[in-house]
Amino acid sequence: MKTLKFPTSHKTQLMDISAEVREAVIMSGIKEGICVVFTPHTTGSIFLFENADQNLRRDLLSALSKVIPSDAQYAHVGSNAAAHLKSSRMGASVSIPVHEGRPMFGKWQGVFFGEFDGPRQEREVIIKVIAG
Amino acid sequence: MKTLKFPTSHKTQLMDISAEVREAVIMSGIKEGICVVFTPHTTGSIFLFENADQNLRRDLLSALSKVIPSDAQYAHVGSNAAAHLKSSRMGASVSIPVHEGRPMFGKWQGVFFGEFDGPRQEREVIIKVIAG
Amino acid sequence: MKTLKFPTSHKTQLMDISAEVREAVIMSGIKEGICVVFTPHTTGSIFLFENADQNLRRDLLSALSKVIPSDAQYAHVGSNAAAHLKSSRMGASVSIPVHEGRPMFGKWQGVFFGEFDGPRQEREVIIKVIAG
Repeated sequence: MKTLKFPTSHKTQLMDISAEVREAVIMSGIKEGICVVFTPHTTGSIFLFENADQNLRRDLLSALSKVIPSDAQYAHVGSNAAAHLKSSRMGASVSIPVHEGRPMFGKWQGVFFGEFDGPRQEREVIIKVIAG
Repeated sequence: MKTLKFPTSHKTQLMDISAEVREAVIMSGIKEGICVVFTPHTTGSIFLFENADQNLRRDLLSALSKVIPSDAQYAHVGSNAAAHLKSSRMGASVSIPVHEGRPMFGKWQGVFFGEFDGPRQEREVIIKVIAG
Repeated sequence: MKTLKFPTSHKTQLMDISAEVREAVIMSGIKEGICVVFTPHTTGSIFLFENADQNLRRDLLSALSKVIPSDAQYAHVGSNAAAHLKSSRMGASVSIPVHEGRPMFGKWQGVFFGEFDGPRQEREVIIKVIAG
């Protein structure tokens, strides 16, 4: 098991963590199996997304904010209700097949951490590789 | 493998099943691996969400209903089209790393069953722990 | 590991691949474990959904297009920004428990490939079964 720890720098932000996931798979020594990427946070998410165009990340964040506006009326006390809802909508874990020692991402596909209530000094992502 | 069976009491409802998941992991005797939580229903969901504030659950249900209103025009015959759509949007399975015999939930994070077409006499959730 | 390859015939489309997933589980010879279904594409998705009513598939596609319109203003250059956003929202992987050699789908539940930027000559879905 590998735990990533990193800061975030913006209120909302998408970070491509594919290189770190790939490295964790290689370091595990497991050639065939699956890789689970998971975040224990409830105002962040883990999901798969296009890895090439920075503009698309802005599009995703802005589409999410349109559906879940941070300034809507919420029963939750505090200012981060929208961040919790975005997190549950985008998900906290993905499972990726591992083949010949590598996660089987597509050419244009990456694993992302979505920050919805930043900036934060430390966010955690757990990577677990299972042989099989 | 452990199967939970429980009734639901409202039309839409979020139920925190983290304690049951934790117990299933402990009972499996598996110390390191992953835990898959899955529901075989198509008008309910399994997802990770904030575990402390009941108000936030209302916020999530109401945000979902705003995007997928139950009284919109649907091609589906019957009254539960919106429930099916909500279920597919929120997902039916999550995978959680297991470390030292426990699922690695965050402090504020729980696994939830989302009921979108209740009340129901019996809903099922399947918990499968894999060593590795 | 089993890789499905198939064409899609419409701009947006939901395809029930449950039979192929079931067959891959049987062919794996694994009786107890989990099955991960994954797509390496960023304009398609894998998710669980109701398997009986074709109308409901149209409802899902149209509900998605209402929230993420293809003709909205996007920063992404090109015409498929909405397809990328839909893909990330619906997810690219699901994990299903396997019991007595079969994936534990519910009676009304199937695994779907969602095409959001078709038609395409070849789409890929990877099915990995892990014993445990």
